[in-house]
Amino acid sequence: MIIIMKPNASQEAIDRVTQVIQDNDLQVHLSRGHEVTIIGVVGDKTRLKGKNLEIADGVDKIVAVTESYKLANKKFHPEQSVIQVGNTSIGPGSLTIMAGPCAVESREQMMETAFAVKKAGASFLRGGAYKPRTSPYSFQGLEETGLQYMKEAREATGLNVICEVTSEHAIERAVRYVDMLQIGARNMQNFELLKEAGKSGLPVLLKRGLSATIDEWLNAAEYIMSEGNEHVVLCERGIRTYETSTRNTLDISAVPVLRSRTHLPVILDPSHATGVRAYVAPLAKAAIAAGADGLMIEVHPDPAHALSDGPQSLTFDQFEDLTAQLRPYSSLAGRSFS
Amino acid sequence: MIIIMKPNASQEAIDRVTQVIQDNDLQVHLSRGHEVTIIGVVGDKTRLKGKNLEIADGVDKIVAVTESYKLANKKFHPEQSVIQVGNTSIGPGSLTIMAGPCAVESREQMMETAFAVKKAGASFLRGGAYKPRTSPYSFQGLEETGLQYMKEAREATGLNVICEVTSEHAIERAVRYVDMLQIGARNMQNFELLKEAGKSGLPVLLKRGLSATIDEWLNAAEYIMSEGNEHVVLCERGIRTYETSTRNTLDISAVPVLRSRTHLPVILDPSHATGVRAYVAPLAKAAIAAGADGLMIEVHPDPAHALSDGPQSLTFDQFEDLTAQLRPYSSLAGRSFS
Amino acid sequence: MIIIMKPNASQEAIDRVTQVIQDNDLQVHLSRGHEVTIIGVVGDKTRLKGKNLEIADGVDKIVAVTESYKLANKKFHPEQSVIQVGNTSIGPGSLTIMAGPCAVESREQMMETAFAVKKAGASFLRGGAYKPRTSPYSFQGLEETGLQYMKEAREATGLNVICEVTSEHAIERAVRYVDMLQIGARNMQNFELLKEAGKSGLPVLLKRGLSATIDEWLNAAEYIMSEGNEHVVLCERGIRTYETSTRNTLDISAVPVLRSRTHLPVILDPSHATGVRAYVAPLAKAAIAAGADGLMIEVHPDPAHALSDGPQSLTFDQFEDLTAQLRPYSSLAGRSFS
Amino acid sequence: MIIIMKPNASQEAIDRVTQVIQDNDLQVHLSRGHEVTIIGVVGDKTRLKGKNLEIADGVDKIVAVTESYKLANKKFHPEQSVIQVGNTSIGPGSLTIMAGPCAVESREQMMETAFAVKKAGASFLRGGAYKPRTSPYSFQGLEETGLQYMKEAREATGLNVICEVTSEHAIERAVRYVDMLQIGARNMQNFELLKEAGKSGLPVLLKRGLSATIDEWLNAAEYIMSEGNEHVVLCERGIRTYETSTRNTLDISAVPVLRSRTHLPVILDPSHATGVRAYVAPLAKAAIAAGADGLMIEVHPDPAHALSDGPQSLTFDQFEDLTAQLRPYSSLAGRSFS
Repeated sequence: MIIIMKPNASQEAIDRVTQVIQDNDLQVHLSRGHEVTIIGVVGDKTRLKGKNLEIADGVDKIVAVTESYKLANKKFHPEQSVIQVGNTSIGPGSLTIMAGPCAVESREQMMETAFAVKKAGASFLRGGAYKPRTSPYSFQGLEETGLQYMKEAREATGLNVICEVTSEHAIERAVRYVDMLQIGARNMQNFELLKEAGKSGLPVLLKRGLSATIDEWLNAAEYIMSEGNEHVVLCERGIRTYETSTRNTLDISAVPVLRSRTHLPVILDPSHATGVRAYVAPLAKAAIAAGADGLMIEVHPDPAHALSDGPQSLTFDQFEDLTAQLRPYSSLAGRSFS
Repeated sequence: MIIIMKPNASQEAIDRVTQVIQDNDLQVHLSRGHEVTIIGVVGDKTRLKGKNLEIADGVDKIVAVTESYKLANKKFHPEQSVIQVGNTSIGPGSLTIMAGPCAVESREQMMETAFAVKKAGASFLRGGAYKPRTSPYSFQGLEETGLQYMKEAREATGLNVICEVTSEHAIERAVRYVDMLQIGARNMQNFELLKEAGKSGLPVLLKRGLSATIDEWLNAAEYIMSEGNEHVVLCERGIRTYETSTRNTLDISAVPVLRSRTHLPVILDPSHATGVRAYVAPLAKAAIAAGADGLMIEVHPDPAHALSDGPQSLTFDQFEDLTAQLRPYSSLAGRSFS
Repeated sequence: MIIIMKPNASQEAIDRVTQVIQDNDLQVHLSRGHEVTIIGVVGDKTRLKGKNLEIADGVDKIVAVTESYKLANKKFHPEQSVIQVGNTSIGPGSLTIMAGPCAVESREQMMETAFAVKKAGASFLRGGAYKPRTSPYSFQGLEETGLQYMKEAREATGLNVICEVTSEHAIERAVRYVDMLQIGARNMQNFELLKEAGKSGLPVLLKRGLSATIDEWLNAAEYIMSEGNEHVVLCERGIRTYETSTRNTLDISAVPVLRSRTHLPVILDPSHATGVRAYVAPLAKAAIAAGADGLMIEVHPDPAHALSDGPQSLTFDQFEDLTAQLRPYSSLAGRSFS
Repeated sequence: MIIIMKPNASQEAIDRVTQVIQDNDLQVHLSRGHEVTIIGVVGDKTRLKGKNLEIADGVDKIVAVTESYKLANKKFHPEQSVIQVGNTSIGPGSLTIMAGPCAVESREQMMETAFAVKKAGASFLRGGAYKPRTSPYSFQGLEETGLQYMKEAREATGLNVICEVTSEHAIERAVRYVDMLQIGARNMQNFELLKEAGKSGLPVLLKRGLSATIDEWLNAAEYIMSEGNEHVVLCERGIRTYETSTRNTLDISAVPVLRSRTHLPVILDPSHATGVRAYVAPLAKAAIAAGADGLMIEVHPDPAHALSDGPQSLTFDQFEDLTAQLRPYSSLAGRSFS
């Protein structure tokens, strides 16, 4: 931690700050520049919690030197993690495809979709049984009935199933039916939900919040991991910017940035990122080329009648065509479909 | 609802779209331009849910004409609402000041603060007993003990008390102790929490999400109201932008925009918006001048030792000085401290 | 300047960095933490230009301690500046109102508007003779003829006149007709234009770029000032964010932030910030309450027929009504109309 | 053009609006919904310029149906354009690589770099002779001497050369030395410069503004094209968002979005987008996979001593290694290095 003093900070002010640091058994390194004085703090800086040195007289600003996330941090766990879900390994060497409809609508829809996406190369069936919708008057999901359909599709096909959870109650239900929990963008900083997901023991796919920084996202992962559950996969799904041509702006740079900061796998969701079916294929290829460990893609037996997110869903034929196009990119990136 | 067809849309495509509309007992108004054809839909457009006309052949885009929120909508409730909390009226003619520390830390802190902010003109004591923190290793709040301290401060001073709730569990606890619930920015689209807050029957202060549009915010209010609880107050607390000089960017235009769209009261939180103590006074004045119904301001007996958000908190003296400065602005705006 | 080394930086890497610093006659202050080593650099850091220490082995990041703008910096010029234009003083104690149409359209329009805004309290007539328009097919301005009309209006009323310049050529023309140049948002980082405006010797109103940080804005002011022209006034006119309810998002916090960083006056433009006439009055009051030195407001004799920006323009009556409302806010802020 | 009336618009208001439309020889299509009335306008809507119907009584909003750019619009020019520069074709089937230092520093630097990037597969040498820098105290470029060095490097290697121009004066100079002009992000809406670049007749690389929407960008291209110069190539270089892990956020979705709206080629600049050398390779691969027609990449003989942008520059070896990695992605995308 580095404390930068104001140009006009008095000696008294500098002394007072260094006193606080030393009183908390930390070491001080003082640099006096010709314009400003800088105070380096050496030792466990959590001892300064609640001291609020930012507002002490003469202090200009404080710069943190180390990240607040530890378990998710590559510095303390340099090797890439592999997250095992059923017989699927998410991580280096594999390209994991999660596909399915935005919302679970019926048993037939899930069963049909499961067979279709499996045939095309997916290893996960996705589907929303609890839908966070902007308006209370939009379709809110089939809830436990939807989970039941997912489980049946899983038993019939051997696919892993993943479902978004939006409350403690939903987690309690979901653990009985699914292989992996999903925390959606709107709940990325619903810390109570993160803790419950951590306690569940199930692997968790953590989507990035609409306007979350990468560091906030890794801190959200830390919430799950600090409950003893290290099976976390990150999912970039577009961030909110001023540009309205796409529903969100896919931050593809997040892939190499995360690689440099965390050992957790990262997958991309081009369907939610763009909201436009025609943009899914080019961005899915780009995701693989950028180094992603997998993709989440919306597929629907009949997008023209989907209850939610139809415009961005692929038909079965389009999805099969897509995975065929993706295979050579995956090989080139040294990954095989898992 | 207006459907704009692509320039090259075939007659067949236009016919198919109009057929879907008519099959759902809605009326069609067709405008053929020299470049494009436009299809107006007249009637209850919820009948088209799940038809996904956006992806029908030949459709370019669909423009909504009416808002999805109804109970919060000024069009259907043109008079400004007054939200009554205890003996305080939030709304036209009043300027409601909510003040207190970011986090409840001790009985003494709350009691001392309550007397100080009451004396200076506040009608609400704020305080966080459940703290949503970016890192799991930061202080998380005193929980029920904190609520107990708030209740004691309320009994001693007659102030209303308001506390953020972050889970169904927290709501269950909070209803026993506080006068008003607060939903924080990170939970603005935690729809399960919104519904529970709606069911609680207590008045709710709904903070704007970090990157929520004004329409998403009003839809979040609609979630609470659609549970039968119309006692909602909106709180602008800064949005996330590229500018880093302030913690967030206070969107002061939200005040007149909300006035034109909703009958619900709106208050501003300059403390969280800026994160800098010196900016609180100018922005508090600006908020009143822009037409806000109230202010939420962080006050702490000893900001230099606050466990959370010290740099933006005012001391008791600073707060008293601030309210003295605000009174003439409040009078000019036709409001009296409530 | 502070150099933060990576946790695993070798002694060799640390030595190499300190060597570069010392080779350039700067002093090194080394702080060895238990996780990282920090190297403080003392002395004139411009000597390190082109050394690119950011990419030296073992370097994690570099933190600047001082701002790159000097002439605009409050640290080296603590007193608020007053910019004199004709008989008008822009700065402490004054509230300067600049009003007029977005675009100069005709002699009658300018003359009529000049008398109307003068009567209502403005001291500047604004008007665009060179219009930067998103589409090449939109009206581009009357150019020198427009400047001529402005000058005539100035002679008839005694108002100061201000006009946006968009090229070196426009500056050459404008200096013959107007009292103050305006650099628009789209040209805030058109550095050649800034230098020319600096050389012109005329006072300059520098609008903030659409997505410029406050520090970039102050550096743009520095471009003008470093040509020997210190007569710069800053104008906040809204920044680009994800919110679409207003054309831009007025960053009202910029007023107190600028106060803490620069001695230059700052005015606000609520017309361009919102693009909506009904929002101009509440935001103009807010601007004064926040401490602004003035306002720029669009006024048009017949907004329903304006060639540009009609929807946000006020009629003469509306403007007169507005200034009447603003006077008590101005008094309260300790300012008189200038 | 569609005019949406307010729910309470009077018949008189509706009549007045339709009258204005008909008075301008346009046709009206009226749709009366149960909540609102919608007025479709059929015909050449430029006739309504300056009528400002947005603020007519009873009007809620106006929705544009067609884009304002025509020459750049795919609707009127459905085939992908190929831009020929010397013996290089930018467009379908080709992958054009432009490489070189951010700033021209010396004859040796340019000559050495030219040979190195040519050997690795580039067909363009880039280099900045006129540098737009945030601070007036940063290195501003070698100007005409720099152009001279570029021309010498071009003659020695046969590479095309491209240089950013920042003023009319710079264009006058550059046309004598270079094959293609570059308009930088900060000048994307410097409309005078765009017009001059159009008049120059040289092919133009138009970088996207820091916070320009895709439609604003295409309108900027239209400025160049409307001067009779249709040789425009677009370059995505990252947009400004709240995320600070990368210098800008590369909007890779811009590639498929542009493909659907314009016939102009698009290239990506991963160096400026991220500002971090380690992120260049993954994003360059992603750009090709997403369908880009080329790449602009910073290469420097000695990045540790570059006068500008060292941290994101590749060494010659790194660049050669990169192009070797890119070739199979290029083949997979059906493109050959040009």
